[in-house]
Parts: sequence; C-alpha cells; structure tokens
Amino acid sequence: MNQAVTLGALALRHGCELRGDPEAAVSHVATLEHAGPDAVSFLANPAYRPRLRDCRAGVVILRPDDLEDCPVAALLSPDPYLCYARVAAELHPPPPCAPGVHPSAVVAAGCSVPDSCEIGPGAVLGAGVQLGERVVIGAGCVLESGASVGADSRLRPGVLLGENVRVGQRCLLHHGVVLGADGFGFARERDGAWVKVPQVGTVLVGDDVEIGANTTVDRGAIGDTVIGDGVKLDNLIQVGHNCRIGAHTAIAALTGISGSTEIGARCMIGGQSGIAGHIRIADDVMLSGRAIVPSSIDRPGMYGGGGAPVDEMRRFQKNVVRFAQLDDIARRLRVLEKKLENRAEDPQ
Amino acid sequence: MNQAVTLGALALRHGCELRGDPEAAVSHVATLEHAGPDAVSFLANPAYRPRLRDCRAGVVILRPDDLEDCPVAALLSPDPYLCYARVAAELHPPPPCAPGVHPSAVVAAGCSVPDSCEIGPGAVLGAGVQLGERVVIGAGCVLESGASVGADSRLRPGVLLGENVRVGQRCLLHHGVVLGADGFGFARERDGAWVKVPQVGTVLVGDDVEIGANTTVDRGAIGDTVIGDGVKLDNLIQVGHNCRIGAHTAIAALTGISGSTEIGARCMIGGQSGIAGHIRIADDVMLSGRAIVPSSIDRPGMYGGGGAPVDEMRRFQKNVVRFAQLDDIARRLRVLEKKLENRAEDPQ
Amino acid sequence: MNQAVTLGALALRHGCELRGDPEAAVSHVATLEHAGPDAVSFLANPAYRPRLRDCRAGVVILRPDDLEDCPVAALLSPDPYLCYARVAAELHPPPPCAPGVHPSAVVAAGCSVPDSCEIGPGAVLGAGVQLGERVVIGAGCVLESGASVGADSRLRPGVLLGENVRVGQRCLLHHGVVLGADGFGFARERDGAWVKVPQVGTVLVGDDVEIGANTTVDRGAIGDTVIGDGVKLDNLIQVGHNCRIGAHTAIAALTGISGSTEIGARCMIGGQSGIAGHIRIADDVMLSGRAIVPSSIDRPGMYGGGGAPVDEMRRFQKNVVRFAQLDDIARRLRVLEKKLENRAEDPQ
Repeated sequence: MNQAVTLGALALRHGCELRGDPEAAVSHVATLEHAGPDAVSFLANPAYRPRLRDCRAGVVILRPDDLEDCPVAALLSPDPYLCYARVAAELHPPPPCAPGVHPSAVVAAGCSVPDSCEIGPGAVLGAGVQLGERVVIGAGCVLESGASVGADSRLRPGVLLGENVRVGQRCLLHHGVVLGADGFGFARERDGAWVKVPQVGTVLVGDDVEIGANTTVDRGAIGDTVIGDGVKLDNLIQVGHNCRIGAHTAIAALTGISGSTEIGARCMIGGQSGIAGHIRIADDVMLSGRAIVPSSIDRPGMYGGGGAPVDEMRRFQKNVVRFAQLDDIARRLRVLEKKLENRAEDPQ
Repeated sequence: MNQAVTLGALALRHGCELRGDPEAAVSHVATLEHAGPDAVSFLANPAYRPRLRDCRAGVVILRPDDLEDCPVAALLSPDPYLCYARVAAELHPPPPCAPGVHPSAVVAAGCSVPDSCEIGPGAVLGAGVQLGERVVIGAGCVLESGASVGADSRLRPGVLLGENVRVGQRCLLHHGVVLGADGFGFARERDGAWVKVPQVGTVLVGDDVEIGANTTVDRGAIGDTVIGDGVKLDNLIQVGHNCRIGAHTAIAALTGISGSTEIGARCMIGGQSGIAGHIRIADDVMLSGRAIVPSSIDRPGMYGGGGAPVDEMRRFQKNVVRFAQLDDIARRLRVLEKKLENRAEDPQ
Repeated sequence: MNQAVTLGALALRHGCELRGDPEAAVSHVATLEHAGPDAVSFLANPAYRPRLRDCRAGVVILRPDDLEDCPVAALLSPDPYLCYARVAAELHPPPPCAPGVHPSAVVAAGCSVPDSCEIGPGAVLGAGVQLGERVVIGAGCVLESGASVGADSRLRPGVLLGENVRVGQRCLLHHGVVLGADGFGFARERDGAWVKVPQVGTVLVGDDVEIGANTTVDRGAIGDTVIGDGVKLDNLIQVGHNCRIGAHTAIAALTGISGSTEIGARCMIGGQSGIAGHIRIADDVMLSGRAIVPSSIDRPGMYGGGGAPVDEMRRFQKNVVRFAQLDDIARRLRVLEKKLENRAEDPQ
C-alpha cells in the first residue's frame, strides 16, 4: 500500500491551513462516503455538502466556508479540487519506472534507449527511435522508425506511433492511441476515383500532454500536426492533418477536428464536438458538448452547440428551449395566419 | 462444416411447433434469399415477407400468421428472431477453447492461469493476473497487473485491460477494446494549466457482457466504473470514469457517456448519443440515435434526440419535422408582421 | 532523401505545360511559404494566391489563370490539386516492401505467404491466412484464421483482421483498424436480457481501399459486409454488419453507419454523420458533416445535416440560420398574438 503522510506535512507542502492533529496520517484518497480514518477526501461541489456530516475521513480538503459542517480534520483551501489533485498525486504517484528492456521486445539497430527506460513485453522500436531518460514504453507498443519520446513520458500498452512522430517530455499516452497515421487527403479524378495525396508531414506533441485511449492524431500532409504543451485530449478523438492545438487546451471525448484547423490556447471543448477544417479558434474559447463549429471564432468566450453551429451560450440555450416548442410555434403561427385571412375577407 | 441437426431436435429443444419432416436436417443459417435445403432461415420483419414465397431453405422460423406463405418446412414461434438467435447459437457455437499458452505469450510470475485457458500468440499477462476456467485471451492482448477475467470469457485479439480491471464470466470483448485507461480528470491552475487528478479506481465488468471493437471504458477517479451484468456495448463507445451502467442495457456505437453518470437497467441507447456527466437515467429508458441528454431522466419511456436535448419521442419527432420548415415559418411570420404594421399605419 | 526529378520529366509524365527550365530539378513537396528551390508546391485554393508572390519553390503547380503572379517556374494544370497528388506520389512513394518474416512474428501452419511479403515484428497470422505478393503486414498486426490480403496491400502496425476477412489489392489499412469484429446483433428475452445472434458472415474489402486509424467494420450477421473498390474511410468510423459501401465513396471521421445499410458509389459523407440501418443511399450523394440520415435517399445531390435529418443543402442551410433566430421568432410570434388579442377585444 501507499506510504502514510502526516496531515502536518500535507498542510505544509500544499500551503493549506490545517484544522486537526498534525501528527495524524493518511495513506490514500477516498470519497466522502467511503473514506476511513486513513483516507483524505475533498469537498468541492456544494451538492455534496450534505455528505460531509457523516464523513469519517482522516481529513477533508474544503473551503473555509464549509468548515463548520466538517466533523473531522480539515485542510482549508480556496480551491479544494486543485489542492486535492496535488495531494492525491503525492499519495498515488504513478508506478516507478522499472528500467530494462523486456526480452520479448524488439529494438531495431540504431535506436537510442537510455538504461533508465522501461520497455515492456512485445514492444517494437523501429530504426532510429530515440527515447529520453526514464521513458516507459508499455507492452505491445509500436514506435515506427524515427519516432522519439522525451524524458519521463509514458506510453501505456498498445500505443502506436508512426514514422518520425515526436512526443515531448512528461507526456502520458493511453492505451491504443495512434499518432501519425496518414491524414485523409485525396484528389479526385473526373470519374470519381481518388488519388492519394502523400502525407509527408508528421506529428509533434509538446511536453506534459495527455492523450486518451484510442484517440487518433493524423500526420500532416505537408508540414506537421502540432499538439501544444499541456494539452489534454480525452478518448476517441480525431485530430486531422495539419491541425495545431494551443497550449493547455482540453478536449473531451469523441470530438472531431478537421484538417488544418488551428485551436488556441486554454480552450475547453465539450465532447462530440465537430470542428470544421481550415478555421481558427481563438484562445480561451469554451465550447459546450456536441458543438458544431463551421467557421472561425475570433473572440474568447463560451459558445453553445448542441447540433447547431456554435453561438454564444445564452443565445444558444434559449434557442434550444425554443426547439422543444417548435411544433407549438408553427401551430400558433398558422392560427394567426387564419385569423388575418378571415379579417381580410371580412367585408367590414 | 457444422454438424447437422434434425428439425425434430430443433423443435423439441427450442419449444416450437414444427410443420415439416422431423428427420430433415440443417447445418447452418442463411438469409431467406440465399438459404438452401441445408439451411435454417427466419422471418421476423414483415417487410421481408414477400421473399418467403421463393425461399428454398430447409426450414424457416416464423410466426404462425406467416405460415401460409411458406413453401418449405417451418418452425412456429411467437418471437422468430429470438428463436432464430437460439437456433443459430446452436448451429454456430464459438470455436472451442484450445487450451494452452502460446510460447510467444508472456505470463508474469504470480498469474493464475488454469490449464483449460487458451492464451494466444504475443499476449501479455502482468503480475498477478487471474483467469477463470476456459478463458480465451486472443493474440496481442495485454492484461496489466492485477487484472482478472472470469470463467468462459473471451478476449478477442488486441484487447487491453488496465491494472486491476475485473471482467466477469461469459463475457466477450472484441478487438481493440480498452478497459481501465485513466479517466479524464484534471484540476485547473489559475494560469490555465492542468494538474492531473490520479485515477485510483478501476473498472468492474459483470457477467455476460459484450463490448464492441475499440470501445473504451475509463477507470474510476475514486471508486470504480461499473458495467452491469448482461450489458451490451457496441463499437467506439466512450464510457467515462465512475459511470455505472445497469444490467442488460444496450448502447449503440459512437455514444459518449460523461463521468459519474448512472444509467439504469434494460435501457436502449441509440448510436452517437451524448449523455452528460453526473446525471441519472432511470431503468427502461429508450433513447433514439444522436440523443443529447443534458439532465437526468426519471421515468421510463422513449425519448427523442437528434441533436436537441431529449424530449419525449412524439413531441421530438414533430419538432424535427418543423425544423425542416423553419425558414418557411420565419418568412410567414415576417409576412404577418408586415400586414399588421400596415394596418396599424392604415389611416382607416 | 528522395531522388531529384527534373521539371521537364514531371511535365512530360503528368501532361502539364512547363514554364521554366526543364533541367531544373526538385526532390520533395512543400507548402507555398516553406518551399525552397528543390521543392514543388501547388496553388489550388484561391485563398492562398497572395502567398504566391513571395514563393521560392523550384516549381509551382497552378492553373493558367494564376500564372501571372508566379515568380518561379510553373507547371500548368486545369486541376492543380490532382496533378500535385500525382507528382507528390512520384516524389514520395511509400517505403519499398522489405521482404522477409521477422523472427518474432508468428505464422501458423498452412498460411500462404509469398517470399515477396514483409511481415513485421510480433505480427500474428492464424491458420490458413493467405497473402498476395508484396503484402506488408506491420508490427503487431493480427490476422485471424482464414483471413486474406491481396497483392501490394499494406497493413500498418496494430491492424486486426477477424476470421475469413478478405482484403483486396493495393489497400492501405491504418493503425488500429479492426475489420471483422462481431456485429451488434441480439434478440431480446421478455425479461430484457439479450441473446446473442451469431455473426456468421465476414467482411469483404475491394481493391484500392484506404481505411483510417481505429476505424471498425463489423462482420455480417448472415452474409457479408462489403466495402467496394476505391472506398476511402477516415479514422474512427463505425460500419455496422451487412452494410455495403459502393465504389469510390469517401467517408469522413467519426461517422456511424447502422447495420444493413447500402451506400452508393462515389458518395461523399461528412464527419460525424449518422446513418440509420436498413436504408439505401443513392450513388453520388454528398452529405454535409454531422448529417443525420433516418431514411433512404433516392436521388444524387447535396444534402445538409447538422443534427436534423438530411435535407437538401440550400434548404438546410437556411433552416440552420433560422435556428439561431429561433428565440427571436418565438418572441415576435407572441407579440403578434397579443396584438391580435387586443384587437379582438377592441370595442371599435
């Protein structure tokens, strides 16, 4: 199990005020309901405040306002969820890198694999692959020739990197991620047949990027597809060739981004969104789930979606409500039309 | 080829009345058009009744009402499709488990692998993996440490199970399924950078579950993601961390379910649906394809979707029809407005 | 690096008029901005014409109309993008097949693998797999028993082919593609439990087909799922059991096609579209992104989508604009209703 940490040490390291015994210790995280005396929990969402009263956690991270309802020790933080993330990372670090190349792995000649790396069973590294220190390559990953992965990055099992794909430092690529398959580029003959346009660019992934399971990022047609530092992509996302995604942008699952689109920094994009190709989205744009973005968005802000092109959030939400009244609207309009027809005919 | 079975034996085992020779035999299934005398076919969808007349099958499973049009032997059933499913399963069982561990598989120390299991080429079992009797692990699967799979379950090639993921008995996981990648959980710093929230839960899959190709189910953030008994998930579905899906619920392809949502039992959810996080859907809810569900659904029933938030089906379908008239509605409204303006200005 | 080709040779082989020195040579492709004197670039999209003036490429492929702005050599073509595709394919051919079976690959007895094939590390070929000449099977691919792949086809790493799946000649299957997982077919018991319907068909893929990363095509329930010659599928697409997709149809990412649907030849289907089951789409249909197709489309043409059922494009686009005005429409209607109520009450 994890090593225990005293509440005093946590308060000190994470800059929180502690209400409780600094010598008491916790070893893991748990929910408000399930936490026992050796667990740390947190209260960020006010909806869960009723659960606080019966909480038996060793300590709860919460806002000062919620302190009065807390029957156990508390770590006070203006942003309990952020503080919880840091405490949890301390209690539950990723498993340490276990250096060594599994005998069933296949490492081509000319690869650069520091001794500090862990290469899992059945992993395949093509010619000229370069790894930084302490890189973990999971079982069954395939890194094609010329791919590189920066220090302290981890590829979970089954990740596939195409030729020359470059991944930065401290990245986490989940199971089944594909970086660097060909983009969807074809020219059309007169008879409707397609001629493949060679996809000669690659994919460049910055530092501190996390990419979810089975997400695909295509290599550039000419030039590269670029994923900025700190970007977080959820599962089953498609990023088209030559897209550029700005630093710290987060994108939820099943979103599709067509080719050559540029998304700014610190954007947050809801799940199943669809973003057209060859457009530009400004920094600090938030898109609701299922947004459709057919054209560029120039100003930061929240934009709605829900199947119609993005619109500013308030306006969009009103329209959505009206959609549910649409049949009613149409009927009422017909009533008015009839009334006016009757009047027009009125001999008055 | 398959072993032949007599019609008499089929009638007996599946509780159908047989019209025809009980000694005649069939060996496989086929469509009404393509079936020959050694094949069993079925008629469930009335649209296909015209095809019955020319059918040359050995026997057709159908409702008593359709018997008069049937030129060949018939097995009478009130639910021909269900009966067909059972007959087809008898004629086309999955290939038998071929016990043994392929020499290219990598089985870590401390795994529990009964002799009755089949472990395919290149499969990787991490430390402490536990398999039940007659489990089939396909080529290239990776089961990370602590994962377990119950008796008679089958993992097709390329399935990836994260640490401690538990799969029940008689499950079927298709190619490329990922269970137990990290959920999408991050806290935000003031400058917009993301701090990862460790995902310390796992995924628990019940018995008799089938999961389609390249579908992903994330591990819980705290506590577990739970897939109930008999659940059927189609391909390319995303199930977020800490979701709970009730028994016998079926979900079609490309649907996304955000974190911490609870879906009841026996629900049927259409393809490409998007379900918000932290909500609850009652038992026996049916959602059309492309449904958006932004908030909880408390009552069983059919709900529409199609890009707007779910709505009861009839109402939704009317609104969809009106959407196609929307430009017309807006123009007619403008005409009325002008008429009234003119009248207002009318010196009369 | 690539071998250089003279402009004269390019003009001759691709049927273009050359304006410039036929002895000058280029070795690779590049964008208008980044191309140097050894690169060929192209101008197809008029939006990029301003970039032509500062271009330093060795040669630019363009329409005769754009010639006057071109400061460097030019290859004149009525369809510069198509011409570019062919020139790029000449300069950037796929890496040659490197014949041989990697020692870590597992090839079952009874496979037919010509000496000209390349079988990558860790690839697994089940019993009776048949490959044509010069087939490339990437690292970690799994071809289950009875699968076959035609001459000159390439499977990138991690492709999974189910039993008896047949792939034609000159196909390109990208990383993580799954062909031949079971279709989503279940019959329902009275208590809501599902009985699996065995999926006894397979997948037949024609010649010159390209399929994108992590796309899934299910095997037929009875009979086969058929992907026609020259079809191009983008990433993360779901094709249900028993679908038939006509020759040269191209489908963008994250589209879902339900079972038994037939799509004609030369269709172009936008990303995230959802197509119902058991319908028929004519040849030469174009669907916008996010189209919903609930019923058959009998005539060629452009159809809109965006969350509502498909509609002809112009009409759809007008309705989309009106959706953004929907709250306004509803308010204006209410105003009219009030006016008319007042008049009705008017003692006039």
